[in-house]
Amino acid sequence: MTQGLSRSLLAEGLGSFFLFATVVGSGVMAEQLSGGNVGIALLANALATGAILFVLIAMLGPVSGAHFNPAVTLVMALGRAIAPRRALLYVTMQIVGGILGVWAAHLMFDLPIVQFSAKARTGAGQWAGEFIATFGLILTIIGTLRHRAEWVAPSVALYITAAYWFTSSTSFANPAIAVARSLSNSFAGIAPADVPAFIAAQLAGAVAAYAIARSLFSPAAD
Amino acid sequence: MTQGLSRSLLAEGLGSFFLFATVVGSGVMAEQLSGGNVGIALLANALATGAILFVLIAMLGPVSGAHFNPAVTLVMALGRAIAPRRALLYVTMQIVGGILGVWAAHLMFDLPIVQFSAKARTGAGQWAGEFIATFGLILTIIGTLRHRAEWVAPSVALYITAAYWFTSSTSFANPAIAVARSLSNSFAGIAPADVPAFIAAQLAGAVAAYAIARSLFSPAAD
Amino acid sequence: MTQGLSRSLLAEGLGSFFLFATVVGSGVMAEQLSGGNVGIALLANALATGAILFVLIAMLGPVSGAHFNPAVTLVMALGRAIAPRRALLYVTMQIVGGILGVWAAHLMFDLPIVQFSAKARTGAGQWAGEFIATFGLILTIIGTLRHRAEWVAPSVALYITAAYWFTSSTSFANPAIAVARSLSNSFAGIAPADVPAFIAAQLAGAVAAYAIARSLFSPAAD
Amino acid sequence: MTQGLSRSLLAEGLGSFFLFATVVGSGVMAEQLSGGNVGIALLANALATGAILFVLIAMLGPVSGAHFNPAVTLVMALGRAIAPRRALLYVTMQIVGGILGVWAAHLMFDLPIVQFSAKARTGAGQWAGEFIATFGLILTIIGTLRHRAEWVAPSVALYITAAYWFTSSTSFANPAIAVARSLSNSFAGIAPADVPAFIAAQLAGAVAAYAIARSLFSPAAD
Repeated sequence: MTQGLSRSLLAEGLGSFFLFATVVGSGVMAEQLSGGNVGIALLANALATGAILFVLIAMLGPVSGAHFNPAVTLVMALGRAIAPRRALLYVTMQIVGGILGVWAAHLMFDLPIVQFSAKARTGAGQWAGEFIATFGLILTIIGTLRHRAEWVAPSVALYITAAYWFTSSTSFANPAIAVARSLSNSFAGIAPADVPAFIAAQLAGAVAAYAIARSLFSPAAD
Repeated sequence: MTQGLSRSLLAEGLGSFFLFATVVGSGVMAEQLSGGNVGIALLANALATGAILFVLIAMLGPVSGAHFNPAVTLVMALGRAIAPRRALLYVTMQIVGGILGVWAAHLMFDLPIVQFSAKARTGAGQWAGEFIATFGLILTIIGTLRHRAEWVAPSVALYITAAYWFTSSTSFANPAIAVARSLSNSFAGIAPADVPAFIAAQLAGAVAAYAIARSLFSPAAD
Repeated sequence: MTQGLSRSLLAEGLGSFFLFATVVGSGVMAEQLSGGNVGIALLANALATGAILFVLIAMLGPVSGAHFNPAVTLVMALGRAIAPRRALLYVTMQIVGGILGVWAAHLMFDLPIVQFSAKARTGAGQWAGEFIATFGLILTIIGTLRHRAEWVAPSVALYITAAYWFTSSTSFANPAIAVARSLSNSFAGIAPADVPAFIAAQLAGAVAAYAIARSLFSPAAD
Repeated sequence: MTQGLSRSLLAEGLGSFFLFATVVGSGVMAEQLSGGNVGIALLANALATGAILFVLIAMLGPVSGAHFNPAVTLVMALGRAIAPRRALLYVTMQIVGGILGVWAAHLMFDLPIVQFSAKARTGAGQWAGEFIATFGLILTIIGTLRHRAEWVAPSVALYITAAYWFTSSTSFANPAIAVARSLSNSFAGIAPADVPAFIAAQLAGAVAAYAIARSLFSPAAD
């Protein structure tokens, strides 16, 4: 259903650019404007991230499938919806485009382009958060794709909006964004040393969702 | 229209898990971040709850009907859309899945898993709130199912978002969530002793809505 | 396209009940929780009102047309979409249902049922606000009904959400709600003496929109 | 797909009137109510602007294409979707209608009608913001028009909601609005001297998006 390879890779790169620029840029803006009230900052950050997700999936879904997330690409590869080599290229574009998006946010806000986050995000509670957040995200994508493909965009957007609030980790749920956010010492950042555990929890949640989805959504009778 | 029994029960359990984890988890997050401004906390709590409701109904509606609420299952049983035995199994899964969701929220936020709420929610005003909230919810579900089935998900999501604000009880409107929230001594909690009156008001509102809906939506002329 | 008379009148009454209960109830809740920050209170009030409007139009539009507003009924009567006698009955139900909704809000929040507002809302700026607000609302309804009937509900909901913020009067845009809100001495109230000028501005805006809509949307070439 | 010229020009003028009145009016209201918390003010401003964009595109898209923005009209002219003379008339109506909208906002809020902004908005970071904001807006419009025309309205609305937060300039992304906002010494204003650089960045972003869109969305294989 997706289009040619070079077009798809451009879509994955551009989409990740805008998604990650929004996560970091709206985090910077929110921190600057919210007068120290972190609740207001997270409302703005969640609203902006959910809004851009709808737009990017609506616009780029018909081109590349609108993954912007290695955990999504992994699950699509497990389900043979994308070939392994193409999947690797997708993930590369997600990371490259996403890092450029973070740097663009720094440029727009007159911050040093290259930074590393000092924000600790660690502990069993947050890892459980990333597992559950990614589990729910993958279930949402597989379920809506199966039954109501036109609702993937609003569902993913609203899922992430909710998950920013219901998980203790504010729901990264995306290995590429965990890497990219380690490069921003701002509201949305994560210390580089804390990234590997987040990614492990995300991939575990994604694979668990893939397994459950086979029982939950497959067309066979019970 | 729904699918096999084991698949439906899995959907009711998983959906209640995510719904109740969101209600409690976003309440904990909101209380921690809002700097004591309860208005900001309830904005976040209402936004997250409405958002996840859209997602869960979009994703799981085609599987189980996406009740996640014994009051909804009761009304469906009254209308013979679900058999009594199946209805009882639905309600069981809603309570079990929902309590696990509350405990998952506690786990994510490093809180003691097992708690009991000390938050008093009582009085005629709040009972009227629960009656009206559930009355409106059931009317919304029956009406949109009858006339515009593709709008059940956004309608239920937005109804609850509004009802968090227009009722004095912040609109539980769900007996299973009243039980589950009694197990969380947090923003979204309710003291166990106050649960039975809430449930009575909810069931009364649901039955009243079922009766009115027969005059309001049935296809016969007036 | 709408259904029988008694069913339609029930729909207009119930819809106005929930709409007005939401406007007043969410205003009371917002004022109580927002810690004196009126911006937070109006965010909550606008969010709740927009959300319930979507739900009520989705649910009751197929029954009565979902007016809930004498200015809308007037314009529909001007366009011969509703007979004069039926229009009068609609308006009666809107006022009766709406006042009951305001009283239900008072009941839920343990406030005296019968009150009168002391909140002055007057002056040329606010009258201009009501003219523009109602003008835009009627244009929105006629335009979306003509070209994209399935978008009436989200359009009206989002129009009012915006208009709460862009007009100095917070956009009543509805004569019945002006009357009903004079019966609540709360966030959403308006002093009874200020109601007639509001209604005059609203009706003028509605008629102006009806006139412009004939040039803007009619299917004839230019 | 659009309708006759005079009808289209009326639509562009009315749409720009309401869009710009919302941007400025909600900014004034937000500043007055938010108690000095700029985060709350920008939440309200972004919410109102996104909401009215959905409405105006839903209502007026079938009439004029709902540009309300010279950068959009320029790109449509580049793609030969609109003739040059018609494009010039569109832009004229956008500027005239938009300035009237700003003045209407001043009228509603009892402010001096004619003002000039003293708010400096300048520097490489903000110009990068305007370039990226307009680049993304044009990409969104071209992409959704190509693949999912019914999603233009929600996509543009949500794109601008996000872009208010992720760009340092709060995303004007519209030369006509840059001109009109220079006439309001309020929250949404921009000093007249800073307008030309904003417009240059916007037009550069629009043309860049037009060029990229040919590779990204054109129906040819890769």
